Amino acid sequence: MTEQLPPTTVLGLGSMGSALAEALITAGHPTTVWNRSATRPEPRGSTRAATVPDAVAATDLVLICLLDHGSVRDVLGTAGPLNGKTIVNLTSCTPAQARDLAAWATERGAAYLDGGIMAVPPMIATPAAFILYSGSQAAFDQARPVLDRFGESHYLGTDPGSAALYDLSLLSGMYGLLAGILHAYAVVGSEGVAAVSFAPLLTRWLTTMVGFAASAAEQIDRGDYSVGVVSNLAMQSAGFPELLELAEHSGISPELIAPLGPLMARRVADGHGHEDLTGVIELLKKGADHE
Amino acid sequence: MTEQLPPTTVLGLGSMGSALAEALITAGHPTTVWNRSATRPEPRGSTRAATVPDAVAATDLVLICLLDHGSVRDVLGTAGPLNGKTIVNLTSCTPAQARDLAAWATERGAAYLDGGIMAVPPMIATPAAFILYSGSQAAFDQARPVLDRFGESHYLGTDPGSAALYDLSLLSGMYGLLAGILHAYAVVGSEGVAAVSFAPLLTRWLTTMVGFAASAAEQIDRGDYSVGVVSNLAMQSAGFPELLELAEHSGISPELIAPLGPLMARRVADGHGHEDLTGVIELLKKGADHE
Repeated sequence: MTEQLPPTTVLGLGSMGSALAEALITAGHPTTVWNRSATRPEPRGSTRAATVPDAVAATDLVLICLLDHGSVRDVLGTAGPLNGKTIVNLTSCTPAQARDLAAWATERGAAYLDGGIMAVPPMIATPAAFILYSGSQAAFDQARPVLDRFGESHYLGTDPGSAALYDLSLLSGMYGLLAGILHAYAVVGSEGVAAVSFAPLLTRWLTTMVGFAASAAEQIDRGDYSVGVVSNLAMQSAGFPELLELAEHSGISPELIAPLGPLMARRVADGHGHEDLTGVIELLKKGADHE
Repeated sequence: MTEQLPPTTVLGLGSMGSALAEALITAGHPTTVWNRSATRPEPRGSTRAATVPDAVAATDLVLICLLDHGSVRDVLGTAGPLNGKTIVNLTSCTPAQARDLAAWATERGAAYLDGGIMAVPPMIATPAAFILYSGSQAAFDQARPVLDRFGESHYLGTDPGSAALYDLSLLSGMYGLLAGILHAYAVVGSEGVAAVSFAPLLTRWLTTMVGFAASAAEQIDRGDYSVGVVSNLAMQSAGFPELLELAEHSGISPELIAPLGPLMARRVADGHGHEDLTGVIELLKKGADHE
């Protein structure tokens, strides 16, 4: 008989919770599942618990993947004793909500780990998935053999809010990228260019330009945006209106990319035209003086 | 004696023009250069022409890399006979300006090719650089041994405006990406996270998410945003305000990513909540009916 893999409970069988449970079952973990509504089928090979207390009592490790923070509070409130349990909350929360849950669970004797899944359900258990964790280091170490089934695990430290902070910040960055992509397709499309014919160039260009994340990071940490400048802000700011005019002229609203323009212009007016675009970040900080 | 490589003239010795001339000299092309101001040094190994007509008379192939469209018109207006010349304009222009220059040059017996350089000067002659061309196919075929020195050459067809259209659209997409990156760093920075420690995760996440460009392209060309949906717009729209609230709560203005929110909400209100985010592109088209 082979050694048993750590048994795990999954609360919530939405598309993400189901993907998590399936990854565990595929890997051979004894898996208990629970879902509020019985209409969601349990993954083949799992054991369905009739109630939350049954599900939580079944294993030491409890993963939670529900709709939102309120659902997690509601469900855990009916869970019965949590003493000695390790709770890994993979429900999307804000940093404040994660800290709230951590305090609540810790008071009841549980070890709390918060997780942010950087993947859509079909990516779970593929190399493309990575998952952020923060909170109890002991919980992370104990749960890791289970968590590594889902994707690359990144532990960010003991502040239970960190995973949510990183998660939401990464999502925000993504929406900037997606907005840029939609704008670009709209403009070329206005002149009859098929999106599929533009896609390889757009993909190549943006993949290269993601490199800005690394070069910007050093400038941001130094607070010095004048080092390593290859295309200065004054030039970029001068050229930016042309992008908006092309869109307008093409019958495309430039609203998705437009807000960067006034920020660049303000920064140039403030005497930073010789620096890099990165310095615009200073203007995002509220209450920062307009020099 | 080895065969002589095609001799080339470069008009304009700004940082990009100089990078182009240096790439040619390094590759062994006899290179003539001209710059309006004598203060710009000519690259070592090039031959400096005193006047534009001298520079243009020196070779059949003339590359132009000046400040803007007006500069190109001014300089070409004093160039003397252009009959039989091949002109490759690598100055940033709008599609309309490129078409204007093409008509003007063609009337004077020159073959006109417009180019959009997707690189900053240090990237010239490295595998990271790619350059878009459109206009005269004969000019492209003739100039190609020279053009391939700068980076990967992409010929987009005979419309001289295409290279500028693609160029400006790619830049627009890039500014969305850069805006997202700046926003993300501002938010994590507000909680004391060093940008360099966040950079690897941000880079990894955005590199994966660039994949949206390919999946969106098929949806856009079909005009059907309901195929292959993994995270529907209703869910994304419902979660989006949380990103703005986190920023606000952190003292960060969400202005760079905010415009996507109302567009997502409008699209959901129009009955497209079950579809993909991509459908937002329909709302960028001006005069498109709000269903």
